[in-house]
Amino acid sequence: MSVPDLNAVSGYLLALQDNICAALEHEDDGGEFREDRWSRDPADASGLGGGGRSRVLENGSVFEKAGVNFSHVSGQSLPPSATAHRPELAGKPFHALGVSLVIHPRNPYVPTSHMNVRFFCAGDATTPGTSPLELSTSGAASAAPTWWFGGGFDLTPYYGFAEDCVHWHRTARDACFPHGADLYPRFKKWCDDYFFLKHRNEARGIGGIFFDDFNALGTNASFAFLRSVGDAFLPAYLPIVQRRKATPFGEREREFQLYRRGRYVEFNLVWDRGTHFGLQSGGRTESILMSLPPLVSWRYDYHAKPDTPEARLTELFLKPRDWASLTDPQLSALNSQLT
Amino acid sequence: MSVPDLNAVSGYLLALQDNICAALEHEDDGGEFREDRWSRDPADASGLGGGGRSRVLENGSVFEKAGVNFSHVSGQSLPPSATAHRPELAGKPFHALGVSLVIHPRNPYVPTSHMNVRFFCAGDATTPGTSPLELSTSGAASAAPTWWFGGGFDLTPYYGFAEDCVHWHRTARDACFPHGADLYPRFKKWCDDYFFLKHRNEARGIGGIFFDDFNALGTNASFAFLRSVGDAFLPAYLPIVQRRKATPFGEREREFQLYRRGRYVEFNLVWDRGTHFGLQSGGRTESILMSLPPLVSWRYDYHAKPDTPEARLTELFLKPRDWASLTDPQLSALNSQLT
Repeated sequence: MSVPDLNAVSGYLLALQDNICAALEHEDDGGEFREDRWSRDPADASGLGGGGRSRVLENGSVFEKAGVNFSHVSGQSLPPSATAHRPELAGKPFHALGVSLVIHPRNPYVPTSHMNVRFFCAGDATTPGTSPLELSTSGAASAAPTWWFGGGFDLTPYYGFAEDCVHWHRTARDACFPHGADLYPRFKKWCDDYFFLKHRNEARGIGGIFFDDFNALGTNASFAFLRSVGDAFLPAYLPIVQRRKATPFGEREREFQLYRRGRYVEFNLVWDRGTHFGLQSGGRTESILMSLPPLVSWRYDYHAKPDTPEARLTELFLKPRDWASLTDPQLSALNSQLT
Repeated sequence: MSVPDLNAVSGYLLALQDNICAALEHEDDGGEFREDRWSRDPADASGLGGGGRSRVLENGSVFEKAGVNFSHVSGQSLPPSATAHRPELAGKPFHALGVSLVIHPRNPYVPTSHMNVRFFCAGDATTPGTSPLELSTSGAASAAPTWWFGGGFDLTPYYGFAEDCVHWHRTARDACFPHGADLYPRFKKWCDDYFFLKHRNEARGIGGIFFDDFNALGTNASFAFLRSVGDAFLPAYLPIVQRRKATPFGEREREFQLYRRGRYVEFNLVWDRGTHFGLQSGGRTESILMSLPPLVSWRYDYHAKPDTPEARLTELFLKPRDWASLTDPQLSALNSQLT
């Protein structure tokens, strides 16, 4: 199996970052992304090279904080700690690139969202310093390098709206379906399993899709699937933003939003393998922590009052549910519990 | 070596919790602790029994959030995950008890503080269900159980005042000195090493003392040392609170405080072994996370402006320094850099 063309993957990811930032700025109507280009000298102690474009929009009218990062890290020798489940890759040259975003809206009725698409390849043919074209060509000819795609997107509402969840999951399902009927159900469950706070026995949000180590469709079709996921993010998220961003809210909703954002921090710092590993292993701290909300509160032993929208969030939304298959009568029944 | 009397240790810890809560309420002049008594059925899946008194003061006039917890956990069989560095203890009955506190003041000129004193014992004689007296008596007679004390206190200022740091560390030093001249230097360094954010290359605060696995002085004198540490917390902290709590402050100081509190969250959720292990292994989430600040902010790639008190915090205070030995001329020289 040949290796996906590194130039093509990189080009897609950079364009995706551009498109998403432009759409979010347009939606925000005032907020602007500022960009930090960073690069890392491969001669430093970590032996890693690479760089990235970190982009952040802070204090927008719609988005209180949105971080959309592109990064491309490579090295001559994959550290053993990064390959615990694939020891045969330790010491091999590698490339890891991706786009990762987290959006924290201002209005508590607009959900927080997260998306990530990434590509990883390692192997003897993956020599840093050679051109990406050489890589993919020589990679096909010599001992086959290992490569895969990963990513997905998930949604974290503060106030639950069944139709938003249905739209989100149907968009995810439709992005997966042309590439295989089994993909959405598998990756939907993977998402539910991954974005789960064990210490709260609670889902982080209403899920979406999550996948890793993906090369099952071969070089071209696996990359096409990744693009389908990346391209589906805006159609999945923007209609929900547009529908909710003008909903009036007060102190009560704001306080609940700040409280629930604490769960986001807890997940990212305690359970998210990428974040935790990145911080412990010398990743670029500011880019990694761009996912953290701009303002967060913790209250001791808070419980929402029964029969409130705040209580319904955990009761009805933060439990895995087959949102994409919800029939109209089921949707109506659910909505009747919400009012 | 006989085992410290479990009743005596427990009695001391409960009284310490009472004293500290009463003193903080008095200092706050309005805020009140509310108590959650909790207990854990030893018959549950974890095989752990025990209980605690969690106390929290929220929205006080001086203390925005103060959590002061007592807990006593015991079990028939120590889980292997809890004894990675002492595999010989796996499967033994054990007791773990302690008082832990974190105080987040409202005024940014008052530092956040943390204190913990704890006792652990494990071994064949440490049979849960037997009375503490039986435990210590039979423990002395049969195969010696393993036991130790641990704890310490550390201070996290938002705005640095050299005289506060000197007072804090001299109080710590004076609490250690009667028990051994080497204790303060060793435990001061241990504290600096432990409360360090590697991903920021920055100390959490100005330190204090930290120790663990401590039984070197024998049964009675080790317990006396623990009491000396526990009893020193209020004399170390309250004078600083009293000196700073009426300092006028505005939005700028408040924003800096909320930003710096992010570091506290990052340390506790990413690096603190107790917190991380507790959350991952099924500890009582609300008690563990009582340490988190009430309100926190994250800003992308924030840097304090040069020559401001905010910049001086990291430049002059968040680096290990021998505060206790600072001479008056050194203190004057440092103070001249602060104005």
